[in-house]
Amino acid sequence: MPTHLSQNSRELRPSVFSQLIPKIKELGDRCIPLHIGDTYRLPPQAALDALRQAANLEMDSTRYFRYTHPFGQAELLQELVVKLERDNDMKVTDQCLQVTCGATQGLSAIAQTFLDPGDEVIVLCPHWPLIRGIIKTVGGNVVNAPYAEAVADPSAVLDPLVTPRTKAIYLANPNNPDGRLLNHDEGRRLYDYAVSKDLYIWSDEAYEHLVYDNNPKVSLAHFDNDKEDKRVVTVFTFSKSFGMAGLRIGYVVAPEDVMAALRRVSTHQVYDLSELNQAAVLAALTQPQESYQAYLAEQVAEYQKARDLLHSAFPDAPLPPGGAYIFVPFSSQEEAWKQMLAWLEEGVSSAPGEAFGGLHPHCLRLCFTAVPYDRLEKAVQTLR
Amino acid sequence: MPTHLSQNSRELRPSVFSQLIPKIKELGDRCIPLHIGDTYRLPPQAALDALRQAANLEMDSTRYFRYTHPFGQAELLQELVVKLERDNDMKVTDQCLQVTCGATQGLSAIAQTFLDPGDEVIVLCPHWPLIRGIIKTVGGNVVNAPYAEAVADPSAVLDPLVTPRTKAIYLANPNNPDGRLLNHDEGRRLYDYAVSKDLYIWSDEAYEHLVYDNNPKVSLAHFDNDKEDKRVVTVFTFSKSFGMAGLRIGYVVAPEDVMAALRRVSTHQVYDLSELNQAAVLAALTQPQESYQAYLAEQVAEYQKARDLLHSAFPDAPLPPGGAYIFVPFSSQEEAWKQMLAWLEEGVSSAPGEAFGGLHPHCLRLCFTAVPYDRLEKAVQTLR
Repeated sequence: MPTHLSQNSRELRPSVFSQLIPKIKELGDRCIPLHIGDTYRLPPQAALDALRQAANLEMDSTRYFRYTHPFGQAELLQELVVKLERDNDMKVTDQCLQVTCGATQGLSAIAQTFLDPGDEVIVLCPHWPLIRGIIKTVGGNVVNAPYAEAVADPSAVLDPLVTPRTKAIYLANPNNPDGRLLNHDEGRRLYDYAVSKDLYIWSDEAYEHLVYDNNPKVSLAHFDNDKEDKRVVTVFTFSKSFGMAGLRIGYVVAPEDVMAALRRVSTHQVYDLSELNQAAVLAALTQPQESYQAYLAEQVAEYQKARDLLHSAFPDAPLPPGGAYIFVPFSSQEEAWKQMLAWLEEGVSSAPGEAFGGLHPHCLRLCFTAVPYDRLEKAVQTLR
Repeated sequence: MPTHLSQNSRELRPSVFSQLIPKIKELGDRCIPLHIGDTYRLPPQAALDALRQAANLEMDSTRYFRYTHPFGQAELLQELVVKLERDNDMKVTDQCLQVTCGATQGLSAIAQTFLDPGDEVIVLCPHWPLIRGIIKTVGGNVVNAPYAEAVADPSAVLDPLVTPRTKAIYLANPNNPDGRLLNHDEGRRLYDYAVSKDLYIWSDEAYEHLVYDNNPKVSLAHFDNDKEDKRVVTVFTFSKSFGMAGLRIGYVVAPEDVMAALRRVSTHQVYDLSELNQAAVLAALTQPQESYQAYLAEQVAEYQKARDLLHSAFPDAPLPPGGAYIFVPFSSQEEAWKQMLAWLEEGVSSAPGEAFGGLHPHCLRLCFTAVPYDRLEKAVQTLR
């Protein structure tokens, strides 16, 4: 690589998936792709209607092809305030919001807003693969901590890891890859710990609605309600709950003082987000509450059925309470890779555990939301 | 601001427009907005058709709402290779391309790919407002140089500015705000200078097709054709040429070794770009060449007419050979602000010169592509 390039960009590693891609490509349609977190479901009809009307010029359509406000379309921000109170028990104003290019740009903007080179973030593991590179890209350091243990007893696990350079704790809830959820007590404990150590929490809630068996789930920023010194920065997206990954609309919710800086960072990363796609997600939010809830309920019911089907191939693996994946442990990293390659030969792709932090190389992740039920059934035949 | 935030994010300044926004909002529809670079024109019909078909589920539509390849949709990359050879005389492969969230994220990815904290970029002035913050966000330093003089005699102007920390020269061509174009000789001179000093050129060609009076314009990367040691990184977008600012699709073209690093950076900034919106820009590229050329010809003809109309209010200002703006000089910064505020009172907004680098505070920028001809006529009555 040219020596002109920055140290951080030269050190970024290619995705662990990149070695698998040629084989997956070679398989083409014969591959049942369970290695990535995608969906076969369509967005709500209201969102499709909004796109069709814009494309048909059924209204003053020029606005959908023009720039919009860098923070996000004003009406969308207002509707998000309502959604956050209703779905997440979070009390915020539109001054706390930034629309982003998916949750990924949300986290990229957060990292850039908080981290100077050498600053540290404690990342609860197993973790979403990209968070490592997002922190490294801006010169930050990742400190891995085991999720279950850290939540059970934050002081015991995290005290030895906190340094004067620690800025935040990152976690996903529901977690990717293992579907772990934070209940109210766990959330409270972690929140109080962060406050006591003068840390922020970066809460990645990309899978917020994908919660099964009516398990309890709490948005961490709920504990910031009515607080003066707020500590939680949350990322959400329309990609998972609403089947709109292909529209790339997510958003960050942060205390107003943090958001003032984050908005400037985001403006310099992407300027604004697609006005057309914001119209589609706005339509998903403003549809009658009954259809909104019905869409989510069907989503969750279908995914729960798919989870149970995929889990039937791995009865000894933990049953994930949320999210989109089953995280299967093997006896060793070697064993896991052997199994992954064998499945791939038979047309089922999975993701290797080392992508999810240093603590789980002996695991494989399989997605149960990526393909329709009948294709998942075929995959399960292979996996058994 | 919380002391937890990074130095770079705390130092980012709010946009110079932010003081004008309340007044513009207050005016509402009575404001003729010439302060921003927007368009009243619609995308090509082929792009609208693609969006409508996707929203109507007239094809296997699930793909439009799913993730796509982080580098960009494969067919789009192939078509961009063809477009670059045809429209820009650039010979590249699909390994040199990254689709981005507009030209802005393209430049953000470039800055992150090249700059370590303290590295310097020479920025030719007057310059596009956001480039300063994009460089600052990643810890880089901006060194302003006068565009006209630097292009006329690179050594004389730039030699005193180049230091061991200088990584690149940034310029826009056509330029924003003054519409300046690089012809073949000027381009060659600047390119040779960059090579001789071991620098890269970041060439912002967001306004590539907006060239009037059949003026000559050269894409700087043209000089990299058949070179071993390539030096030009170019940014393009569908926002200006194709009236699709509201879709947020741009792309970076870079030497393969630079692109390998830039792709990893971009993946960690936004993951991928909207598959739906990529389908729309792909349709614009794959429409019959005749309609493609007709769309661009009409665009240029309408904008040239608009340019001439707006220029009639400022016969002493330079007539811009390209771009979307007239950059009007006044006797002083004070005089310029006085005029800007007076116009704003009468319902016409313009942009203050200090947004475009330190060298032109006595100027105002007015956009001639933002509103239809009849509204621009009304604005001109006020401006006269």
